[in-house]
Amino acid sequence: MNGLHILADFHACEGERRLLLDAAALAALCRRACTKSGLVVVAEAFHQFPGAGATGALVLAESHLAIHTWPELDAVTLDLYVCNYSQDNRAAAETAYDALRNELKPLRIKRRDVIRGDLAEHDPDAVTNIESALP
Amino acid sequence: MNGLHILADFHACEGERRLLLDAAALAALCRRACTKSGLVVVAEAFHQFPGAGATGALVLAESHLAIHTWPELDAVTLDLYVCNYSQDNRAAAETAYDALRNELKPLRIKRRDVIRGDLAEHDPDAVTNIESALP
Repeated sequence: MNGLHILADFHACEGERRLLLDAAALAALCRRACTKSGLVVVAEAFHQFPGAGATGALVLAESHLAIHTWPELDAVTLDLYVCNYSQDNRAAAETAYDALRNELKPLRIKRRDVIRGDLAEHDPDAVTNIESALP
Repeated sequence: MNGLHILADFHACEGERRLLLDAAALAALCRRACTKSGLVVVAEAFHQFPGAGATGALVLAESHLAIHTWPELDAVTLDLYVCNYSQDNRAAAETAYDALRNELKPLRIKRRDVIRGDLAEHDPDAVTNIESALP
């Protein structure tokens, strides 16, 4: 259960609009980002809000990716939690995160990293706030 | 996208063992907890690790519940994120969280609450650490 949980709020997303509007396109992006990073998808569930955003989750052997789009706000919230059961999966998580960010193209990001499990015992406030904004 | 995200690590779970071992039992618990709380399940994906734990996610109209069990550690990690799109869903989230806790019966909990979306702008370190241990 030890691992890294990235919580990211993407604002002002300038990627392809269908990624925010179409659950199938969003699911394909998520699968692509995870698989290319070496993360293993074991199940998935996505839902299309009619005429609105999309939402869903990939269940990973390493834990999960959950994603929700807010096209009316050009925003996306995502969670990527990877446990380090048999190996340290943080680098794979960063690769998958980068792939999602590179396609969704947010101009502003609020990212918080949470260390989960007993690793967090070494740092009880194991939360890192990472703000970033592009011009 | 504004809303409450509860990240909880449950340790020393003393609930029914099948909840940690059986993906179908775990999924049923999650559906029950959410539905009784007024949260709306729109999709789900669960996976059974053969001879080991279970893992999965409920996609909610209000965002998601993701859960992973670690029977070898008597542990569960769970995430419950509810956005406040049409109404404040924090009370429903707390009710669902209580239902999960009451059935999984952890003796020790590490819970962190993260406020997501623009609400967090009012408190850039909007993370609350909640430790609890029974008895």
